[in-house]
Amino acid sequence: MNVRNAEYVFNRNIALKPVGRGAGAGKDSVNLSFGFPATELLPVEALSQAAVEALIPEGVNALHYTGGGGVAQVRNWQLNRLRKFGIAAEEENYIAVYGAGQGIELAARVLLNPGDIVWTEAPSFFNALDVFRHEGALISGLPMDEQGLDVDRVEELLRAAEASGGSLPKLIYVIPNFQNPTGRTLPPDRRQRLALLARAYNLFILEDDAYGELRYEGENLPSIYSFAPERVIYLTTFSKTLGPGLRLGTAIAPAGAAERIRVLTLNSPPTPFTLEIVGRLLQTYDYDGQISRLKACYRARRDFMAECVQAELGEKVTFSVPEGGFFLWLSFTEDISALDLARAGREHGVLVVPGEQFFTDHLAPAPFLRLCFSYCNEQEIARGVQALAAAYKQLVQPQRRII
Amino acid sequence: MNVRNAEYVFNRNIALKPVGRGAGAGKDSVNLSFGFPATELLPVEALSQAAVEALIPEGVNALHYTGGGGVAQVRNWQLNRLRKFGIAAEEENYIAVYGAGQGIELAARVLLNPGDIVWTEAPSFFNALDVFRHEGALISGLPMDEQGLDVDRVEELLRAAEASGGSLPKLIYVIPNFQNPTGRTLPPDRRQRLALLARAYNLFILEDDAYGELRYEGENLPSIYSFAPERVIYLTTFSKTLGPGLRLGTAIAPAGAAERIRVLTLNSPPTPFTLEIVGRLLQTYDYDGQISRLKACYRARRDFMAECVQAELGEKVTFSVPEGGFFLWLSFTEDISALDLARAGREHGVLVVPGEQFFTDHLAPAPFLRLCFSYCNEQEIARGVQALAAAYKQLVQPQRRII
Repeated sequence: MNVRNAEYVFNRNIALKPVGRGAGAGKDSVNLSFGFPATELLPVEALSQAAVEALIPEGVNALHYTGGGGVAQVRNWQLNRLRKFGIAAEEENYIAVYGAGQGIELAARVLLNPGDIVWTEAPSFFNALDVFRHEGALISGLPMDEQGLDVDRVEELLRAAEASGGSLPKLIYVIPNFQNPTGRTLPPDRRQRLALLARAYNLFILEDDAYGELRYEGENLPSIYSFAPERVIYLTTFSKTLGPGLRLGTAIAPAGAAERIRVLTLNSPPTPFTLEIVGRLLQTYDYDGQISRLKACYRARRDFMAECVQAELGEKVTFSVPEGGFFLWLSFTEDISALDLARAGREHGVLVVPGEQFFTDHLAPAPFLRLCFSYCNEQEIARGVQALAAAYKQLVQPQRRII
Repeated sequence: MNVRNAEYVFNRNIALKPVGRGAGAGKDSVNLSFGFPATELLPVEALSQAAVEALIPEGVNALHYTGGGGVAQVRNWQLNRLRKFGIAAEEENYIAVYGAGQGIELAARVLLNPGDIVWTEAPSFFNALDVFRHEGALISGLPMDEQGLDVDRVEELLRAAEASGGSLPKLIYVIPNFQNPTGRTLPPDRRQRLALLARAYNLFILEDDAYGELRYEGENLPSIYSFAPERVIYLTTFSKTLGPGLRLGTAIAPAGAAERIRVLTLNSPPTPFTLEIVGRLLQTYDYDGQISRLKACYRARRDFMAECVQAELGEKVTFSVPEGGFFLWLSFTEDISALDLARAGREHGVLVVPGEQFFTDHLAPAPFLRLCFSYCNEQEIARGVQALAAAYKQLVQPQRRII
C-alpha cells in the first residue's frame, strides 16, 4: 500500500542490477561472452526474398492482429519438425512465442505464484534465473555432474521434502542438450527418470531446448517431454538457426498449461509480420542444409577454441568438449576470482562471462568462465583466448609475488 | 505448495475464460467487434520496399539480438514525433514494446504486486482489465461522464481512502483520447488535475494513447504525461497507423520505472527484424500523409455509421459522435440484455462487443454495445447495422408479446 509523500513501491521482485553488468567494451574487443550465432551464416538473402514474396500477396493479413497464412505455415512446419525429436504434439499444445526467452517467462507466469519454489541446474542460464526471480519464486540450484543434472540427488531431495512435510518445487528448469553454460548433455535414462519424478511429485519440468538442433556428434536423444508430455513444457527457437532478431520460438505444453498461456498472451501470435515472412521462407528453404552449415562451422570453432585454450591456459583450466551448442565452460584449478579475471580480460580486449552469473547465490563453487565459440571466427577466437591468458597471467602473478 | 497426487496449482490469477468468448462467426458476418484498422490503408507496398532496402545491407544486424541501426531510427523518430504532443522525453525514458498491449503489461508488472489496487475508467479496454487481473491486482472502475473520467470523484475517493486509512490505488489506467470503448476525450483541465493527484497521492497514471493520432475534429490536447512526467507512463503504438501485425509500440516512462521495465525485458528490443524494416520505412515514408488518409477514411466511416445507427435504431439508442478513434458506444434505452443482443446479432450476421466486457464486475449499468467503424467499408457498415437492428427487433418483440 502506498501513502502520501512516501516513496513509490515498485514490484518488489524486480531488482535493479548494479550498473556495469554486461557493459560494453572497446570496439576491438573479442566478444566471447553472449551466445550469438555466427553472423555470416544468418540467412539474410533468403529472408529478404521471403519478405518480398510474402508481403505483396499476404501483406494485408501480415499487418493485422491475427496474421495471415504464415501463422499456420510456421505451426505446421514446427509440429512436423518436432516429430524428428520424439515430440508428438498437436495444435492445442503449440504456442508461437517471441523466442525461447518469452517461453520461459510465460511458463513461469502460468505455473508460479510468488513464493513458489523453482529448482534449476547449478549453474544455469542467467536470464531464466532472472525471470524466475521476477515472478517472486524461490530458486534452488541442484548439483550437476559430467552428465548434467544429478537426478539421484533430485529424487533424494524430493523424498526428503515430502518426508519432512516441506515444500516441494512447482517447477524444475532443465536444459538437457548442451546445457548453458556447462555444455553437458543429460543421458536418456536420466531424462526418463526426471519425467517420472515430475509425474509422481506433481510438478512441471520446463525443458529449454534452445540448442537441440546443433549437435556435432552422436545421435539425437529423446526429449524429457517425450516421457511425460502432460508434465513438461518444451521450448525451442529459431534464434540459433535463422537469427535471434526474428524473436520467434515455440512452446509445446500440455493442454491445460497451453490454454493458460493463451489467456496470458490474449491469444495474440507474436509479430504476425515476422511469422508471415518466416512461414513463407519455410515452404521452400533448405533448413537441413542450413543446419548442416551451422554444424560444420560451429564444430570447427569448438575444436579450434578447445585447442587454443589448451595451448594458452594448459593445466590452469579443466573443461570438457561439449557434443553441441555454443559454449566451453572453463574451471580454473587455482583459487582465483572469476569476476576479477573477466574484468581483467575486458581490459585485455576479450569479453567472457564469469561463472557467478549462472548461480543463484552469486557464489560459484569454483572459478568458472563461460566462453562462446559460435560467434567469433578462428582469428578472433585465437586473439580472444590469448588475451584471456594474458589477463590470467597478470592476475595471478602479482598475487604470487605477495605470497 | 503442491503435494503428491494432488491437482497442480497453476498461477491463481490466470482464469480460463468460458469457451465461446470472442468465438468466430460465419464467413459473411460483418465484423464491427474488434478495433482493427482499415485493411486497404495498411502500407504493404511501402513496408515491402523497406524490407528489401533494410535487409540486404543491415540484415545481419536485424537478425541479431541487439538489432542494427533501425533500433535507433525508430527511437529517434518516435521521440521527435511525441514532441508534437507535448512530450519532451529522452532516450532514458523510451522503451520500444510489442504494441501498447505489452506496454500495459510491462507497466503493470513493474508497478504492481499482487493485491495492489488499480483504478480504471468504467467502462475500460478489456485486455487491460485482463492484464491487471493476471497480476493479481484488485480493480475498481471509476465513473465517467460525457467528458470522460470524473476527476472530481477520483479526488473524493482518494481523500476518503486517505481519511479512513484505507488503501490507495497504486495505479490509475486512463485512455484520455477517444476512449475505448466510449470514444470520450478527457479535457485538458481534468488531465492536469489527474496528473497533480498522482503526484500528491504517490501513485502512477498509465496513459494509453493508442488512438491519439486519429483525431477527426479539434486540436490535439496535451497529454497527462506532460503535466507530471515523473508520475505517468505514456503508451503509443504503430498498430493503428502502420498495422498491428508489426507488434510495435512505445512506452515513455520516468527513469526509475523505465529502468525496471528494461530489467524485466532483459534489455532486449522487440523483434529487431521488424524494427530494422520500420526504421528504414520511417526515414522516407510520408507518415503525415498516411495519417491524413486514415483520418479522411475513418471520419467518413464514423459519420456514415452514425447515420446508419440513427436511421435503423433511432430512439432505441443514445450515443455521442467521438472526435476520433475507432468506436461508437451505443446505450440502449430499453432494459434489454446487451449480451443477448450481441448473441442475436451474431446470428443475424454482425459481430459487436456487449458492454459487459468493459466492466470489471461484468455487470454493466445499462445495456451497451461497442461498434467499431474503422475496419469495415460503408457497404459492410450498412449491412452490419441493419443486421443489428433486425436482431434488436427480434429480441425485443417476443418480450413485448409475453407482456
